[in-house]
Amino acid sequence: MAEHNVVWHDGLVSRADRNLLNNHKSGVIWTTGLSASGKSTLVHHVERRLFDLGVRTYVLDGDNVRHGINANLGFSKEDRKENLRRVAELAKLFVDAGVLVLTAFISPFREDRDYIRSRFETDDYLEIYMRCPLAICETRDPKGLYKKARAGEIRDYTGISSPYEEPETPDLIIDSDVMGLDESIDGVLDLLKNRRFITL
Amino acid sequence: MAEHNVVWHDGLVSRADRNLLNNHKSGVIWTTGLSASGKSTLVHHVERRLFDLGVRTYVLDGDNVRHGINANLGFSKEDRKENLRRVAELAKLFVDAGVLVLTAFISPFREDRDYIRSRFETDDYLEIYMRCPLAICETRDPKGLYKKARAGEIRDYTGISSPYEEPETPDLIIDSDVMGLDESIDGVLDLLKNRRFITL
Repeated sequence: MAEHNVVWHDGLVSRADRNLLNNHKSGVIWTTGLSASGKSTLVHHVERRLFDLGVRTYVLDGDNVRHGINANLGFSKEDRKENLRRVAELAKLFVDAGVLVLTAFISPFREDRDYIRSRFETDDYLEIYMRCPLAICETRDPKGLYKKARAGEIRDYTGISSPYEEPETPDLIIDSDVMGLDESIDGVLDLLKNRRFITL
Repeated sequence: MAEHNVVWHDGLVSRADRNLLNNHKSGVIWTTGLSASGKSTLVHHVERRLFDLGVRTYVLDGDNVRHGINANLGFSKEDRKENLRRVAELAKLFVDAGVLVLTAFISPFREDRDYIRSRFETDDYLEIYMRCPLAICETRDPKGLYKKARAGEIRDYTGISSPYEEPETPDLIIDSDVMGLDESIDGVLDLLKNRRFITL
């Protein structure tokens, strides 16, 4: 150190090195869809399947992000935007670290999703639309939030009092009201093989 | 309440699963010290050595954090605090993902460092103090920032116009003005072995 006055701007381990060590490409699988459309269930099961194949994966969702790095954000439109911005930057770091990131956020606005996509190389980013009719999501309502939104106890709730803008060209659509979980997982795994994230 | 309406799920892959797959423990190696004390140089070289041993590592420093997730923060005391808070939460996610995180931030205030440490399990966190006399750091001054601070062009510059509070009980002290780089790297590797992060 005494003899080193050099400043490193690039690390000594590159993303390419990490992808080689891990034997798979890193990237982001971004799921979007209504609350209770099945995003979290899907990504956690996909993660388990990938993990069993030796893939380094990680899930970013409201659970681990809202309680930690974004704990100081609320649910106003501006805060939701900042929430997603930080998630995108978080995901970038994980991609650089060689991890295949799976995310589960409603991310209802096209503008926000376009921004997120713009932060990644084309080949590093896949968008999956969990398509499910609002009526079905409301029947599921695992957290009772649709009910509260209908009662006016929650403002700006996606699907009820705030719009959900469907993706125009997602890389995959999963109709979670009719497709089974295994079939859905297989669909994502096939996509990852086709786009050469994994070769297994 | 930012966390209102957020429900916690457990994933299907645990940190323990990941640590087992990677064959090492995940955690945080936090370096603190004056600007130009050699933090970045050290952590990048440690990362390279760890990577060559098959360890999953990642460096968080100003270069990848300030331009991304913290790009909307300045250098006021409050913003510096928020910068470090976000880095701590970022590091937590990487630890959960099975990664051995190395950080390089001046982190001059004891209060901030204590807060960061409090966010981790005792066994998951190590603090390394890069100790180097200010006069030596000023001589190195790779970015010309000490000179600007002396000229009054930068306010609240650590060591010049803002204090650096030395760690009281760091896990390792590296006197970077007298220790060579290889010796310093070996010191960190030994520490990681002694604390059972790696067994290699």
